[in-house]
Amino acid sequence: MPRTDFSRMFSPRGIAIVGANTDATRPGRQTVLALDRHGYKGGVYPVNPKYAEIGGHKCHASLADIDGPCDVAVIALPAAHVPDVIAECGRTGIGFAVVLGGGFREMGPEGEARERRMLEAARAGGVRIIGTNCLGFVNIHERVFAGFGSITRPPDLVPGPVSAVIQSGGYGNSMVINAGQAGIGFRYLVASGAESDIKVPELIDAFVDDPGTRVIFAYLEGLNDGRAFMAAAKRALAAGKPLVVVKAGNTQQGVRAAASHTAFLTASYDVYRAAFRQCGAIEAHDIGDATDTLQSVLGGRLAPGRNVSVMSGSGGALVGFSDAADDYGLTLGPLTEATRAVLKESLPAIASINNPVDFTAGFFKASNMPRLVQCIEALLADPGVDQLGIFMATASGDTMGDSSRAVIGARNPAGKPVYVFSALPPTMTGEGRALLCDAHIPVLASPRRLAAAMAAVADYSAVRANRERLLAEHVPALRALPALPAGKVTLDEHAAKRLLAEAGVTVTRDVVLPADAREFKLPAGLSFPVAVKIVSPQIAHKTDIGAVKLNVADEGQLEQACAEVVANARRAVPDATLAGVLVSEMIPNGVETIIGVVRDPVFGPVVAFGLGGILAETLRDTTYRIAPFGLDTAREMIGELRASALFKGVRGQPPRDVDALAQTLVTVSELAWLARERLVEMDLNPVLVRPAELGVAAADALILLE
Amino acid sequence: MPRTDFSRMFSPRGIAIVGANTDATRPGRQTVLALDRHGYKGGVYPVNPKYAEIGGHKCHASLADIDGPCDVAVIALPAAHVPDVIAECGRTGIGFAVVLGGGFREMGPEGEARERRMLEAARAGGVRIIGTNCLGFVNIHERVFAGFGSITRPPDLVPGPVSAVIQSGGYGNSMVINAGQAGIGFRYLVASGAESDIKVPELIDAFVDDPGTRVIFAYLEGLNDGRAFMAAAKRALAAGKPLVVVKAGNTQQGVRAAASHTAFLTASYDVYRAAFRQCGAIEAHDIGDATDTLQSVLGGRLAPGRNVSVMSGSGGALVGFSDAADDYGLTLGPLTEATRAVLKESLPAIASINNPVDFTAGFFKASNMPRLVQCIEALLADPGVDQLGIFMATASGDTMGDSSRAVIGARNPAGKPVYVFSALPPTMTGEGRALLCDAHIPVLASPRRLAAAMAAVADYSAVRANRERLLAEHVPALRALPALPAGKVTLDEHAAKRLLAEAGVTVTRDVVLPADAREFKLPAGLSFPVAVKIVSPQIAHKTDIGAVKLNVADEGQLEQACAEVVANARRAVPDATLAGVLVSEMIPNGVETIIGVVRDPVFGPVVAFGLGGILAETLRDTTYRIAPFGLDTAREMIGELRASALFKGVRGQPPRDVDALAQTLVTVSELAWLARERLVEMDLNPVLVRPAELGVAAADALILLE
Repeated sequence: MPRTDFSRMFSPRGIAIVGANTDATRPGRQTVLALDRHGYKGGVYPVNPKYAEIGGHKCHASLADIDGPCDVAVIALPAAHVPDVIAECGRTGIGFAVVLGGGFREMGPEGEARERRMLEAARAGGVRIIGTNCLGFVNIHERVFAGFGSITRPPDLVPGPVSAVIQSGGYGNSMVINAGQAGIGFRYLVASGAESDIKVPELIDAFVDDPGTRVIFAYLEGLNDGRAFMAAAKRALAAGKPLVVVKAGNTQQGVRAAASHTAFLTASYDVYRAAFRQCGAIEAHDIGDATDTLQSVLGGRLAPGRNVSVMSGSGGALVGFSDAADDYGLTLGPLTEATRAVLKESLPAIASINNPVDFTAGFFKASNMPRLVQCIEALLADPGVDQLGIFMATASGDTMGDSSRAVIGARNPAGKPVYVFSALPPTMTGEGRALLCDAHIPVLASPRRLAAAMAAVADYSAVRANRERLLAEHVPALRALPALPAGKVTLDEHAAKRLLAEAGVTVTRDVVLPADAREFKLPAGLSFPVAVKIVSPQIAHKTDIGAVKLNVADEGQLEQACAEVVANARRAVPDATLAGVLVSEMIPNGVETIIGVVRDPVFGPVVAFGLGGILAETLRDTTYRIAPFGLDTAREMIGELRASALFKGVRGQPPRDVDALAQTLVTVSELAWLARERLVEMDLNPVLVRPAELGVAAADALILLE
Repeated sequence: MPRTDFSRMFSPRGIAIVGANTDATRPGRQTVLALDRHGYKGGVYPVNPKYAEIGGHKCHASLADIDGPCDVAVIALPAAHVPDVIAECGRTGIGFAVVLGGGFREMGPEGEARERRMLEAARAGGVRIIGTNCLGFVNIHERVFAGFGSITRPPDLVPGPVSAVIQSGGYGNSMVINAGQAGIGFRYLVASGAESDIKVPELIDAFVDDPGTRVIFAYLEGLNDGRAFMAAAKRALAAGKPLVVVKAGNTQQGVRAAASHTAFLTASYDVYRAAFRQCGAIEAHDIGDATDTLQSVLGGRLAPGRNVSVMSGSGGALVGFSDAADDYGLTLGPLTEATRAVLKESLPAIASINNPVDFTAGFFKASNMPRLVQCIEALLADPGVDQLGIFMATASGDTMGDSSRAVIGARNPAGKPVYVFSALPPTMTGEGRALLCDAHIPVLASPRRLAAAMAAVADYSAVRANRERLLAEHVPALRALPALPAGKVTLDEHAAKRLLAEAGVTVTRDVVLPADAREFKLPAGLSFPVAVKIVSPQIAHKTDIGAVKLNVADEGQLEQACAEVVANARRAVPDATLAGVLVSEMIPNGVETIIGVVRDPVFGPVVAFGLGGILAETLRDTTYRIAPFGLDTAREMIGELRASALFKGVRGQPPRDVDALAQTLVTVSELAWLARERLVEMDLNPVLVRPAELGVAAADALILLE
């Protein structure tokens, strides 16, 4: 599909409102009112054969009657009429339609058929559709209000550089409104609804292409095509436009609520989170958090590291900040002697001139402002300070205004990010806040929120620094897929390990003995101790039923172990076909890990990695990445486990072969990608990670193909 | 010390301002200005021989010259003068002084001596002191402003039932101001500063005794006497007055910042958190969170369980709430048929009448208000709904006013907690907010914050339901302390286990063989396999140096194991005295846990409990309680571990003997309490938890006495 040029949609010459009426509580009327109230300059064309005029605008019997150029039709009619109106859009050259109402695929077979007819009409007529079931879209700069409900009502947004796409109109708009209240200006706002045609990735693409958009916000409940989203996000990253994302529908109850609310497939939140990391999207987690993050990336300032400094007149606020700094991985490092000398000269004798800086209560007064500027400049010039926060706390009125001017006026040649904490409402801090907002200096409502904003900027700065790696397509080193057996089939341990070995994954050596053998001798190539396990396509969790014996030390024990696993398997799963008894080498001194692959409905093949063993599984210490990926990403996964210190060697244990582990993750990700058409699930459990340079080995595996 | 009656302090007949002056930027002048601006009705007595009058008040040469009744002296003088002024307070019958400035124990030996002289003068004269180094205190109802700085400046607080003590003036007051902006009314506000005399617990006691205080807020950085705080908190619990606490200085950087800022000992945050749970204090974590929590407990409504319902016109907001509900352990359970019938009748056809309830966009209009009331009443009458949230989201003006009236007017015979989410600022929602505030219905700024508020109320309701248990003093069943060896001594495994056994803790059977023996025979009473370990007061971490051998299977292996542990110990710690080789029974099939006791500088003996093994220790899955405690508390600890599912039996493992484990925790806590004068540290590692009914056994232990 050729890329759509959205400029006629966002800057339409005229807007038709099909189903316009005179009841202000109804969508059709609301659109006309909003266009009038905001002063839209293009043509406003109500369409409804029942009226001669609506709100002073001539009312048209049909789209064909419109006598001026018209690029957008807002359709406020019951679903049954929509396919015909779309067809009429096509005939009259209206390139974009906004379908406000529902009644499509969410309503079962009849609605699905209606949606199909609508989309066919759209394709035939070259019409693109926002919606169905949506609040519509807005262009704040040009006062285009092609929608209804909360996006057309006060509080009015001011023009600015943020464009937003929100999948839930009401809730997403709560976030936009909250950001607007903090002084953030908006450009395009699209409530994309059920996304029957135009979807989030295409809108992000449009925002990336729009020169007036500098920051992109997306409120997501689910995606149809996760990789299309990642591609759009990477385009935003390449263009240097921060993409801030809030994803809802992440927990069991949340997914259930989302399922009843939208028609999206919902991938596991872990997978979304991995995808956001891999494409450089910045995640926020709540209304206030989204506002804070947008404020913080709006100025375009980046931080080379995670060293920060803050200055406050309240030691307590510094304590609160320091707690949060630890939680967010920020460091309050030492200041240089030069910086400390300036602080000592400028601040009261009882001040603390270490980091964090306590300038003590009462310092914020007009006569001290030159000193405040000196301190800020010294801190911003300190090579150990990547970001700076100034706590205005309960300063109000002129004091807030003066100190804001000091913050803005201070020289900041390196363009380091600067933040302000104010505990007072805008009604008491108006002038200062307005000045800071114009200077793109974020104002946060608590020291903790200031730390969170600094962390978001540090994270995004790291993403920008790693941009090349994130943008590079990973080219699998694995060139060809090993031969896969045909059909829907489960590969048992022996077969799965063979396949993995062919792909280059180290597996434990093994041999299968017949289940009904009388004598069990250790085959050549293996030495004691060995592991003995049942092999059966019907038995996945062998350990749980006693069908695994480890540390089998000699031939006597081998015979007994083989007999036991066969007996235990027969008892637990009487109908199981026993393909044999697997005897395999034991890997000494390995840290147990698990590598898995699942086929995600939204993102396709995804690699999961975690620690093995009952305890680790109980604690769910697991991380995910979209396949395929390279060594840097694999190393990131290993470092993300809560217990990752284990790989460095703790309590007298040796450091582990992290290189080999990372390579194994990469190979598995490549295999998962190449086999994506057939691979339903793959489970390497355990993968034993040996001391450094001794490698890793998959000691068990299971592969499901279809 | 007899309990002080604080009524003369909070309601003084007159206030002297010692060191008053005419410079409005200085504390002494600020107090007089604040008293005048707020309209304090008592006597205002500036004291300064340099002036005849200050701001229209007669200025006095000394406290003795004051001609009316005076109960509080605010002292705005350099530290050197303070002890004499306190003595003068005593002579003139002024019972309370507020020392605004610093220059005492935080300044080294000279300051310490000064503080001592000040306290001696206070004790001799019957004077109680707020401060040193503080902003002073306020009685909002009676317009008493005995302080300076932000607590005397706008925004003015409105009178109400919350009394607050804040250890950092500026930051704590940011929290109070934020709460005030949300409409919360205050009564007493004390910035207690360095707490040279009057400390947090005594102030909480005063608030508990004050009939006008209904809710207590405390901002803490550290405590001198943790158990005094717990006793005060329990009095608040007994009186039914919620105590909301914010504790700062919790992380490494935070503790460092607190240490340079205050003179408090700082216990581990884990210990504070345990103490808060044990005394029923409600913890909040940030400025906004504190406001939300105060709002939510202010109405006094409790919830019998964690089942909640919310209704919204935006499905997205419900998804966001549902995510948060999962995170906070709230359940959106099924509604009864009766409730669903009412919802079906009252709401639009496209509404979702399951829980959460989606009444769909556009429902909030005047004509629908009777239907909204019906829905709210049905949900509040549903036995499966303990708390209810109504999402007003972007409703403003009259719509917000109307729907607020509907929420307030709905019958709520059981007094279930009700909450409102509004995304708009007070400037757009004024009337509705004011009505809700008067009705003690909290207004939260996001669905997630609404969920957090519900969780706080559910937690506090559980505390109130468990009040008797929390208030009951635990009486140790352990009557007498086993005999302890004299002096500063480390008990090795053998001796420590003997002591634990005497106290009633099950330990593994063992025997000590001489380290220099030639032949090692298994002593009577033990059977193979056994564990072999070195015994040496100088070697604590035996495993790390190879001085432990497990699963020793026969006499041959025993001899070899003994020789190896001796050799490894000699190699690792050449100077160590080897007291012998300990041979002890092996406990099969036990889950490894660790029970420890530390002597906390703030709270005294504290019991730590966690899972054992390298992985668990790396993940720090540990919980704490102040000793001594009973079985219910011990069970709570076991349930708090992230991996507590292990005790229930996972992956084919049997359920564990949680009863015996809980009893062991109780016994250790009693032993720790009884031995508190001598016990520096105690470490039971591992404590093996066997399958249900088979008990637990401490397989190693170490005790440090002094």
